Amino acid sequence: MSLDSPDADSLRDLRRDLHRHPEPAWREFYTTARLVDELETRSLDELHVGPEVLSEDRQGVPDTAELETWAERAVDAGARADVVDRLAGGETGVIATLHCGDGPTVGVRVDIDGLPITEADDSSHRPAAEGFRSENEGYMHACGHDAHATIGVGVLDAVAERDFDGTLKVFFQPAEETVSGGKPMATSGHLDDVEYLLALHVGLDHPTGEVVAGVDGFLAVSHFDAAFAGASSHAGGHPERGRNAVQAMATAIQNLYAIPRHHDGATRVNAGRVGGGTASNIVPEEAFIDGEVRGETTELMEYMDDHAMRVLRSAAELHDCEVDIEYAGRAPSGESDGELAGVVADVAGDTAGVTSILDRDTLGGSEDATYLMRHVQDQGGLAAYVGVGTDHPGGHHTPTFDVDEETIDIAVDVLSGAVERIGTEQP
Amino acid sequence: MSLDSPDADSLRDLRRDLHRHPEPAWREFYTTARLVDELETRSLDELHVGPEVLSEDRQGVPDTAELETWAERAVDAGARADVVDRLAGGETGVIATLHCGDGPTVGVRVDIDGLPITEADDSSHRPAAEGFRSENEGYMHACGHDAHATIGVGVLDAVAERDFDGTLKVFFQPAEETVSGGKPMATSGHLDDVEYLLALHVGLDHPTGEVVAGVDGFLAVSHFDAAFAGASSHAGGHPERGRNAVQAMATAIQNLYAIPRHHDGATRVNAGRVGGGTASNIVPEEAFIDGEVRGETTELMEYMDDHAMRVLRSAAELHDCEVDIEYAGRAPSGESDGELAGVVADVAGDTAGVTSILDRDTLGGSEDATYLMRHVQDQGGLAAYVGVGTDHPGGHHTPTFDVDEETIDIAVDVLSGAVERIGTEQP
Amino acid sequence: MSLDSPDADSLRDLRRDLHRHPEPAWREFYTTARLVDELETRSLDELHVGPEVLSEDRQGVPDTAELETWAERAVDAGARADVVDRLAGGETGVIATLHCGDGPTVGVRVDIDGLPITEADDSSHRPAAEGFRSENEGYMHACGHDAHATIGVGVLDAVAERDFDGTLKVFFQPAEETVSGGKPMATSGHLDDVEYLLALHVGLDHPTGEVVAGVDGFLAVSHFDAAFAGASSHAGGHPERGRNAVQAMATAIQNLYAIPRHHDGATRVNAGRVGGGTASNIVPEEAFIDGEVRGETTELMEYMDDHAMRVLRSAAELHDCEVDIEYAGRAPSGESDGELAGVVADVAGDTAGVTSILDRDTLGGSEDATYLMRHVQDQGGLAAYVGVGTDHPGGHHTPTFDVDEETIDIAVDVLSGAVERIGTEQP
Amino acid sequence: MSLDSPDADSLRDLRRDLHRHPEPAWREFYTTARLVDELETRSLDELHVGPEVLSEDRQGVPDTAELETWAERAVDAGARADVVDRLAGGETGVIATLHCGDGPTVGVRVDIDGLPITEADDSSHRPAAEGFRSENEGYMHACGHDAHATIGVGVLDAVAERDFDGTLKVFFQPAEETVSGGKPMATSGHLDDVEYLLALHVGLDHPTGEVVAGVDGFLAVSHFDAAFAGASSHAGGHPERGRNAVQAMATAIQNLYAIPRHHDGATRVNAGRVGGGTASNIVPEEAFIDGEVRGETTELMEYMDDHAMRVLRSAAELHDCEVDIEYAGRAPSGESDGELAGVVADVAGDTAGVTSILDRDTLGGSEDATYLMRHVQDQGGLAAYVGVGTDHPGGHHTPTFDVDEETIDIAVDVLSGAVERIGTEQP
Repeated sequence: MSLDSPDADSLRDLRRDLHRHPEPAWREFYTTARLVDELETRSLDELHVGPEVLSEDRQGVPDTAELETWAERAVDAGARADVVDRLAGGETGVIATLHCGDGPTVGVRVDIDGLPITEADDSSHRPAAEGFRSENEGYMHACGHDAHATIGVGVLDAVAERDFDGTLKVFFQPAEETVSGGKPMATSGHLDDVEYLLALHVGLDHPTGEVVAGVDGFLAVSHFDAAFAGASSHAGGHPERGRNAVQAMATAIQNLYAIPRHHDGATRVNAGRVGGGTASNIVPEEAFIDGEVRGETTELMEYMDDHAMRVLRSAAELHDCEVDIEYAGRAPSGESDGELAGVVADVAGDTAGVTSILDRDTLGGSEDATYLMRHVQDQGGLAAYVGVGTDHPGGHHTPTFDVDEETIDIAVDVLSGAVERIGTEQP
Repeated sequence: MSLDSPDADSLRDLRRDLHRHPEPAWREFYTTARLVDELETRSLDELHVGPEVLSEDRQGVPDTAELETWAERAVDAGARADVVDRLAGGETGVIATLHCGDGPTVGVRVDIDGLPITEADDSSHRPAAEGFRSENEGYMHACGHDAHATIGVGVLDAVAERDFDGTLKVFFQPAEETVSGGKPMATSGHLDDVEYLLALHVGLDHPTGEVVAGVDGFLAVSHFDAAFAGASSHAGGHPERGRNAVQAMATAIQNLYAIPRHHDGATRVNAGRVGGGTASNIVPEEAFIDGEVRGETTELMEYMDDHAMRVLRSAAELHDCEVDIEYAGRAPSGESDGELAGVVADVAGDTAGVTSILDRDTLGGSEDATYLMRHVQDQGGLAAYVGVGTDHPGGHHTPTFDVDEETIDIAVDVLSGAVERIGTEQP
Repeated sequence: MSLDSPDADSLRDLRRDLHRHPEPAWREFYTTARLVDELETRSLDELHVGPEVLSEDRQGVPDTAELETWAERAVDAGARADVVDRLAGGETGVIATLHCGDGPTVGVRVDIDGLPITEADDSSHRPAAEGFRSENEGYMHACGHDAHATIGVGVLDAVAERDFDGTLKVFFQPAEETVSGGKPMATSGHLDDVEYLLALHVGLDHPTGEVVAGVDGFLAVSHFDAAFAGASSHAGGHPERGRNAVQAMATAIQNLYAIPRHHDGATRVNAGRVGGGTASNIVPEEAFIDGEVRGETTELMEYMDDHAMRVLRSAAELHDCEVDIEYAGRAPSGESDGELAGVVADVAGDTAGVTSILDRDTLGGSEDATYLMRHVQDQGGLAAYVGVGTDHPGGHHTPTFDVDEETIDIAVDVLSGAVERIGTEQP
Repeated sequence: MSLDSPDADSLRDLRRDLHRHPEPAWREFYTTARLVDELETRSLDELHVGPEVLSEDRQGVPDTAELETWAERAVDAGARADVVDRLAGGETGVIATLHCGDGPTVGVRVDIDGLPITEADDSSHRPAAEGFRSENEGYMHACGHDAHATIGVGVLDAVAERDFDGTLKVFFQPAEETVSGGKPMATSGHLDDVEYLLALHVGLDHPTGEVVAGVDGFLAVSHFDAAFAGASSHAGGHPERGRNAVQAMATAIQNLYAIPRHHDGATRVNAGRVGGGTASNIVPEEAFIDGEVRGETTELMEYMDDHAMRVLRSAAELHDCEVDIEYAGRAPSGESDGELAGVVADVAGDTAGVTSILDRDTLGGSEDATYLMRHVQDQGGLAAYVGVGTDHPGGHHTPTFDVDEETIDIAVDVLSGAVERIGTEQP
């Protein structure tokens, strides 16, 4: 298969359609419906949608009004209303199963959500130039999950045509960007019989043609939402009557970034979305920080989290305010298994378009694929996180990110080839 | 007139209708239309609306989308579409003129805008208990401007029935809370022939029955909107590639409040509305502070403003960001003229319901009535800012603020009596 | 008396000698000894020194090593060792009494301590040009207490030559700059029979020849010493093992200055002396802030103090540190009595060299003379704080501050004249 | 040799004597004199002292008064005055040379300075219990350099008794803790003929009996001294006239620790010694930060340094102050050569008392031994940094750090054995 083939055209069209409709975590209504629509045309053995693919353990779910706004937007954009209805409450995502023999059960996990980033709009940005720029203004597929979902479909097609002895399950996971979709999908039961798991990411600063057989070094991550509450007052008349939630917030921000670095490895912290107050002449009563901490290991993440919680609470006290903190998503660190990565590397060596293979590389970011990987590893299986390079003009999570569509073809070939090989070799 | 009279009932109904429809600065579409509707039933000599009552010198005007949202909301709530159309671009406000003889021209200035505060909703809050709580959720008449506008109408009625020799102009000014409506109304030309100006405020921590003949001690004020711009990056993968606008904002907030106090008198500073960033896992590219500084004199305000500008610029530099700062409204300090306040005090002494009279008091807040007062004073006229007490359960700018409606009656009587007396005495 | 007279020469010599030996709070060994030496040549009725003039209620006393260093320095500079020995423990200060009849007891209070400021050393600074610059490098009479002490001596001489019917007590008070000497002297018992108290300050931005009969508007003040304790660690190897006292200190500093301003009047805050840590490669275990808060009233000072204490404690918690806070000196607000100020104004009107008299003026600073004034006022007496102008090149508490010595003469004449008049008029 | 032998006793006595006299960077007067005294009893071929062992390129040298204080203290404690005189200007350190044949020149580098830490004083701390606690109160050998210097002497003795064919140079380097002694010793010329260099550190969280043949992962480091200058004023009277250097300092501290972490590896920052202001009632005119940044590579250190410089400058501007920044010491990152580490590992395997050998380990701290190592490596030689474990009760740079003296014996055996083996094998 190549991008000149009808299949490749079809996959590119799918990717571009998804790219035009980026939806953030737990709001992937259009995306899920579009995938269901696509998959129902295939000859699949099982297709589970929405509530069927998630356990109860969801975090960071938006309020009803927000969910309804996105559901309506999806239907307005052409999503099938019957599918969107099945996703009520923001329970998005799909799992597709293909039985091809009595061999092992192999999982492929792709994620499907977008980001709250405004996409670039100048002619040097290909989606803008070629007419598939985001139609959900302020949101964007700036991390390639449009390609991931597309590759998931492509792998189902390609494995069906290969000589695979076993069962393939493709997990189309929602809410990766908020690291809140991995856990409920990992504990949904659908992963319990999976013996081998391949997860996927495009790009990661690798060029088109380069494959990383086993990505390691996932940072453990924890997201939090902190809400500060004080008291408002007239800023001119009685500043002393206020208890200033914005000052508490600012004190917290300054000190969150200043949590001591750690001997044992990399840590991260970000106050990614903040705000407070209502008008320039009112002492702010409320403020918030939606933030996150990360660590090279789960222990390092917990070190950062302990400090962050103390910073948030003390900053509130310092300004005589209260703070309410909720966890909004969490993922452990993770490692690829060398045996399984070895299979991927071997297959990649035989794949057209692959010009360079790395046995392993360090991610330096987080991923709740680690929940799925750990689940499989804990029950004795093997997992590998495969990186498929793509020439991306802007960095991940920036307005000029884009995927070289050649990558879709390569990823489908490598992953479907690896699935076939796993059936044979059972590493 | 008393609150048991039909007029009082009518005024109370008007006040409660305005209370149900609070609109923030430059968005007083319903309010303006409602006032026009009311005033057109009177026998007035002139009625100027919207663009006719303002010079070009407006600041802090929201964007078109925001204006349209409020205009639609006003029409949906029953505002006359023909009036709302005349207010396009957020040019709100009314000036009503009544000629009663060849005597002096007397101005009465009231303000009409609401605040971005969510009104209390429990039964101890009278507007909630009696069904006239704000219908614009998140906005509230928390400073009594609903009563002010109503009193303006009442004064027109009362003066028409009194023995006044002269011309009365009532200025229904928009955008006081952002101190941006005073200047364009002061320089509209309509104030050029005004020889005496009475401005009004209810409450100010004075109880019902107490009148302050001449309020002094207005703080000069300057509002600013600062927009910080940096660069986004993936918070886990490449924190070093970001230029963090939220850190710049937090550094600025901490240091704005820490500007040194001044020997010469009171100063104020507030970072009243702030925000930044888009998601917890993205280093924030943008952030903003809508803030203000004040001073007991215009010089002290400028001292604070100089420091605030340096803080904002240096905080941006410190985090390798840019900052764009716009002024959003400004008012000088101001003083009431004793001769005119003396007339008010005399009239108040003869007014039913008035139990206590203070010759002067200090406001401790800001008011862009000072632009109108200075304009009149600079052309040789006299101005006084009259405080009419009201029992208010919560403080100004808090969710439980309310006006004792008895105050409306008292204010109409005191102001209309003073207008009549000015015509006679020409102090 | 004029500056050309032998007495004036003698007073100028005394002032310059004191100027050369500035000593900070509780370390006025040379100063006290020099005053005792001077006063013992007079015919006085009582002379109390050191421990005899202070109650137990002292704060902010330095440690023994520090006291001994200054005591040795004093003796090395020529102070009488027998007097310095009597001041062991830093109990400095003198009270001199002169009985001149059965009339009322009048107190005159002057302060005697210097400041930790490095004096200017260029030829435009008179003490440098004329050879009486500070010999205690790093310390300076930058607030005129050298002149105050000298004037105290001069008043004793002048009253002895006047026709005064009563008893004069001159209080040479230590430790005014740390507001810790006023209270123990006020409660020493020596003030219990004083019916009229005159306190003195030169300068205060008034020129030579101007007298303020009754200074008001003393800011209440409270000094604190906060010591932060965390844990050290190797900054390169194990930053996470430290609990960083310097970060706690910095967080406190930023937020101390940001305590909300107050509607009721002026407030102040200063982190005047701070420090922490031992070496650039060690996470700091210890840090400190010696600071102060002030208020236009005692209540406003207490408002600031409450906030400051919360800021200090929360900043410590935020960085997992402890903080120990001690009060180091405190003074209430204060007012001059108009009747007594009236006497001073009358006398000043008859005094050569006085070209301008103000009945009252606002200080805008703090003074623990208020302890002595309140003590006298509370027992039914009268007190006034007299300002005697002096052309001072630099501001108070700056390296170029100096006293126009003409002022000494004027102050002696006004104060001794007022003492005489009080004996006669008993206001 | 074992600790029961006379030699071991002698070394222990030397170590304890050095431990009692810890001296910080460039003030190692007693230490240098004591080493010279000791070494002059040996039969050495060359002994270079002070100015002879350093190039001009020294940083962070204290002022003359400080140097003289320590020089006097050293002589008072029994140091030979003739040696101390040779160290004028703080040019400390020793290089001892032993010719044993025509084989290669091997260098051994040890460091000799102490730290500004107050040593623990309770009976559980062995130096306190056994009477060799620091006699320079406030300073301490808290990083084992007392043992290092002792081991240097021991290696000279041991190699003299071994069958070494070559030349041994032992470098007793000053000022390691401020990373300012390594560069001037590396560029002194004495290292130019060294073909193999062994550097040494005890402890590093490894227990007694464990040897790390080649330590890697030295953090590059840069020390800076930042001096902020503003303007003082009376904190009560005229806070607005001050330009507050302490606020600038605090803003800088908060933001230094908040410099973004970096994808490429570990970074560090510390504001290790800070201070400012003179008295609680004076707005602070001056303040300082003695700090450092580090990076896992020299590039990462420079990234931190760029940010730190911008933070310092912008924080000064933000408070209208100036800042003067000087570099106070710097060291690059560094790596041990595997071939040379292999020799050390082999020898360690044959050494009594060694129970565990690690080929390599990561330091996580900084060391200006890297200057010497790079100098040798750049001229084609090999270098290894050898870790010799010791059971240390408290961590490095803490008040309870101590060296298990058994370690001295082991280190002497391993290093002298490696020197001998290098002569033979020339790896």
